[in-house]
Amino acid sequence: MHSWVDGHPAESLSIKDRGLAYGDGLFETIAVRAGRPPLLEYHLARLTEGCRRLGIPLDLPLMRTELLAFSAGLGEGVAKLMVTRGEGLRGYAPPPVALPRRILQSSAFPAYPEGNWEQGVQLFPCATRLAEQPLLGGLKHLNRLEQVLARAEWQGGDFAEGLMRDQSGRVIEGVFSNLFMVRGGVLVTAELSRCGVAGVMRAALLDCARAQRIAVEVRDIPFEEFVQADEVFLCNSVFGIWPVRSVTGHHWPVGPLTRKLQAIARDLLDI
Amino acid sequence: MHSWVDGHPAESLSIKDRGLAYGDGLFETIAVRAGRPPLLEYHLARLTEGCRRLGIPLDLPLMRTELLAFSAGLGEGVAKLMVTRGEGLRGYAPPPVALPRRILQSSAFPAYPEGNWEQGVQLFPCATRLAEQPLLGGLKHLNRLEQVLARAEWQGGDFAEGLMRDQSGRVIEGVFSNLFMVRGGVLVTAELSRCGVAGVMRAALLDCARAQRIAVEVRDIPFEEFVQADEVFLCNSVFGIWPVRSVTGHHWPVGPLTRKLQAIARDLLDI
Repeated sequence: MHSWVDGHPAESLSIKDRGLAYGDGLFETIAVRAGRPPLLEYHLARLTEGCRRLGIPLDLPLMRTELLAFSAGLGEGVAKLMVTRGEGLRGYAPPPVALPRRILQSSAFPAYPEGNWEQGVQLFPCATRLAEQPLLGGLKHLNRLEQVLARAEWQGGDFAEGLMRDQSGRVIEGVFSNLFMVRGGVLVTAELSRCGVAGVMRAALLDCARAQRIAVEVRDIPFEEFVQADEVFLCNSVFGIWPVRSVTGHHWPVGPLTRKLQAIARDLLDI
Repeated sequence: MHSWVDGHPAESLSIKDRGLAYGDGLFETIAVRAGRPPLLEYHLARLTEGCRRLGIPLDLPLMRTELLAFSAGLGEGVAKLMVTRGEGLRGYAPPPVALPRRILQSSAFPAYPEGNWEQGVQLFPCATRLAEQPLLGGLKHLNRLEQVLARAEWQGGDFAEGLMRDQSGRVIEGVFSNLFMVRGGVLVTAELSRCGVAGVMRAALLDCARAQRIAVEVRDIPFEEFVQADEVFLCNSVFGIWPVRSVTGHHWPVGPLTRKLQAIARDLLDI
């Protein structure tokens, strides 16, 4: 396992970095197979959009080159990239000329039980609700206390993921994955303009579904509708797709569209 | 200017720290005069409450000893303390046994214009609204992107602070200070259970006002009422109290209760 800061091997960072002080930055969690990040373009597109919205002047061509070099060195595993606004003045004001910092860390693929893909998973019903902040909705930024609190709500292996809802009770996502449901043949995932993280696997699956003329809806999901879905699944760019079996007494079968998209996710991830 | 990590001189931190990865921690900005932090007990009380709510097992007696030693070495200036949950596992789950990290940085007192205390300040009306998250309301945690975005809304010296409202438009606080208004002799400040940072100077002023039998209300403040206040002022534990002169065409005089509390704030800060 190795790590780089601004393109050089390093394991530490200045305590003046605004990533630490304010969570002033973004991150990507990137699967690497055979020395390549299969969803590279999706990761870079999201990062570009995040930097645009936060006003972080990242050198994208350099970032791409660096990610490719880091992935080649890693071979197989997960590359975590953090981009921060760099060091700053005292106080919240972004420095007039920001020098963004690029931090890369590698880890092995997490050892999830095989049953997560085959029989599906149980969701823990998190009491932690997502706050609504349109300025940050959809971004994979470094302010993640809500996820920390939600993930701390359960221990042990009975629940592979947690269900996160917004302050109004709408179904949004998992703690570390996005959520889809199938209703009458239509693939539905939550609209993420007020809260939630717009995952790259979610984006890639939406693109693939549209290309295959599967009906897709990105919209609010009331909990009452969610529990009546025909199929439910989770996705992210590391594990692909896990069918969801149940949450608090509500059960779903592992359905045909989930299985079809699961195969697509495997292709997308070069598995 | 110097800095400590876990009680030892250091200027860097492991990139595995959860403070960087998730903003999983808290901070305090502490004025130091003649080698002592005058509001030490308020800072430690808030930190204790923050650690309790986030489940960070900080060694408080050690923290107190360290803060006192750091302050003695600093003499005059501002000590910024960050407490993080320390290094973690991969993923959001807090480690079963967290080893919290203590980071201390010093800086000089900011050079604010004298007029901020005398004639008062203009508030910039921030378009960035605070999200409502009861689990984090009042905490001085490390997830501060809203403040970064708000502070980036204006440049230059015309506005000393920005006015932050919640998603419903209620008046909450400044970007780096708390806000009070006076209405008919009653001192009013926003209730901070859904958003905002419960500042130590705010807490100390509330205590002093109650002790002096000044009527105090901690409650929601509609914008329509705010603009009709008799007096408005900002406070924090570094600058004490600044009267507020105006925001977007609404003007307030610098009133007698503001001046009285300004003197109390100076006493509290040993100025």
